[in-house]
Amino acid sequence: MPTNLQVLLDHRPTDTVSPANFRIVEAPVGAPGPGEVLVRHQFLSLDPAMRPMLDDVRSYQKPQEVGGVMRGRTVGIVEASTNPRFQPGDAVQGEGGWQRFSLSDGRDLTIIDAKAIPLQAYLGPLGLPGVTAWYGVNRIIAPKPGETVLVSAATGAVGSIAGQLARLAGARVVGVAGGPEKCAYAVKELGYAACADHKSQSFADDLKAALPKGIDGLFENVGGEPFRQALRRLNDFSRIALCGVIASYQGAPTGVPNIGLLVVRRIKMEGFIVFDHLDLWPEAIRELAGHVAAKRLAWRETIRDGLENAPQALVDLLKGENFGKMLVRVT
Amino acid sequence: MPTNLQVLLDHRPTDTVSPANFRIVEAPVGAPGPGEVLVRHQFLSLDPAMRPMLDDVRSYQKPQEVGGVMRGRTVGIVEASTNPRFQPGDAVQGEGGWQRFSLSDGRDLTIIDAKAIPLQAYLGPLGLPGVTAWYGVNRIIAPKPGETVLVSAATGAVGSIAGQLARLAGARVVGVAGGPEKCAYAVKELGYAACADHKSQSFADDLKAALPKGIDGLFENVGGEPFRQALRRLNDFSRIALCGVIASYQGAPTGVPNIGLLVVRRIKMEGFIVFDHLDLWPEAIRELAGHVAAKRLAWRETIRDGLENAPQALVDLLKGENFGKMLVRVT
Repeated sequence: MPTNLQVLLDHRPTDTVSPANFRIVEAPVGAPGPGEVLVRHQFLSLDPAMRPMLDDVRSYQKPQEVGGVMRGRTVGIVEASTNPRFQPGDAVQGEGGWQRFSLSDGRDLTIIDAKAIPLQAYLGPLGLPGVTAWYGVNRIIAPKPGETVLVSAATGAVGSIAGQLARLAGARVVGVAGGPEKCAYAVKELGYAACADHKSQSFADDLKAALPKGIDGLFENVGGEPFRQALRRLNDFSRIALCGVIASYQGAPTGVPNIGLLVVRRIKMEGFIVFDHLDLWPEAIRELAGHVAAKRLAWRETIRDGLENAPQALVDLLKGENFGKMLVRVT
Repeated sequence: MPTNLQVLLDHRPTDTVSPANFRIVEAPVGAPGPGEVLVRHQFLSLDPAMRPMLDDVRSYQKPQEVGGVMRGRTVGIVEASTNPRFQPGDAVQGEGGWQRFSLSDGRDLTIIDAKAIPLQAYLGPLGLPGVTAWYGVNRIIAPKPGETVLVSAATGAVGSIAGQLARLAGARVVGVAGGPEKCAYAVKELGYAACADHKSQSFADDLKAALPKGIDGLFENVGGEPFRQALRRLNDFSRIALCGVIASYQGAPTGVPNIGLLVVRRIKMEGFIVFDHLDLWPEAIRELAGHVAAKRLAWRETIRDGLENAPQALVDLLKGENFGKMLVRVT
């Protein structure tokens, strides 16, 4: 049997995560027991929410176990199986974690169609980020034609899909992204009407200029100063889909300075986690797959090669150095 | 014709409002012109939202005009009318303002039934406060049986109805009020399961003890420290109906320190103004009137006599010196 390579959490970060928090080990690969499936991973998904998972705090996700294989979503190919639902060669998406191979009882695995669509799209527009974008846009913001929707981390795995879904719903979509390259991509490839670079000195003015009619829907992934600026531009009856607060995962918390604003403007602000809505996944994936098949959705990936580079990739993701979905190709 | 007495806004408060901000004048009462109704007021409604109305800021309510008669809801009796919808002697609710008589084209007036129910109830449980409570409880919190709902300003005009409606919906209802007398009334007369006195040294501990299962719904009228304490007790999937922030109308703004909490706990926070939902008023009033007729709703009033005492009554309302709905009897 081949050898497994695994990335373990060695010790929790106290502040900023670094590769030193992880440990890479080799381990034997066992043969599948009764009903088990052995999967050879091709891609790991890296997600911002992995940072809070490293802390030992009560949350919607269990803390990552110290000394355990880092948890995470994966796509791969079935190598061996004693489970009648899976055959060797099947492409599957699952919760295999940061390792070359995983053994599963099959309950976390879904067979995916990797012929028409690249395998790793099931970690992006047809996976967790896509469904997250779908839920926030359709079930919280529910943009009406002509409304303005602002998306932070506008070119990220979630933001890029959120922006496009809001545009497909008829909204004028404005993005916030880090750097001129991402902003140019947001406008040219993703169809944003405008994009403000939060690294620019003129960010506050640029954002204001991009929002002549204010904000009716805010898809918030980041928090921090751009969020505080966005609060100033919210219209009456605006909706905030709170998806994540990347800026605060390793920095100061982001707050709302004055809840009176929410009353005066009748604003709805709603935090959500897509795992709470598993019943909607089939509908969401069906719609997203339709958009992908019709080439109505663009997306971008940053692929890092080699499992051993996953820790650095997570560090870079949290600094926004990715461009689109951050993936690790397992070699 | 009798003489009108009017309370005008003399100048805007810069910080805390005082009677010196107002001016009381006499004025002639005109006869109704074509289609007009002359109403003799019996009660003025005093509402916390009158404080922000005194500021010259953009909001859902137009700023009160300096030199103009203070705006406000009233109940009274038609004195004379050339409008075929209204006859002398009709009891009406309207927007007559702080004056003994008002002339109206009738568009703000509703004929009310003052036989079975005291006139001023149409400024309380069957008026703006009642419908406000109804909307926040039924349309935002939507309590399920067995859930815990926390209500601030628990014995106030809105809070007392909100607490009772949540209890009638099957929730366990906990209140926050100022002082032992209000807390005792909340439990004994309004049916709260518990009430924490925010003026007590042991408030934070008392609140925690009153919420063994946390908070599923928060009906927020006040803000300030009780709101910050409540944030710590919110359960997953809890709903915050943001009705007002009385503590911040003349004090420091109330904020949410960390929006990450809203994501992790999947919390919905929604500001609302009952005037946006005029379509629901008939349904709300019908339900509220049913509860009142069946004696399922209790309420209390603080009545100040004399129009000239309205400014002091507003000052006292903002300090929480009222017990239940604050009214001025026009004599």
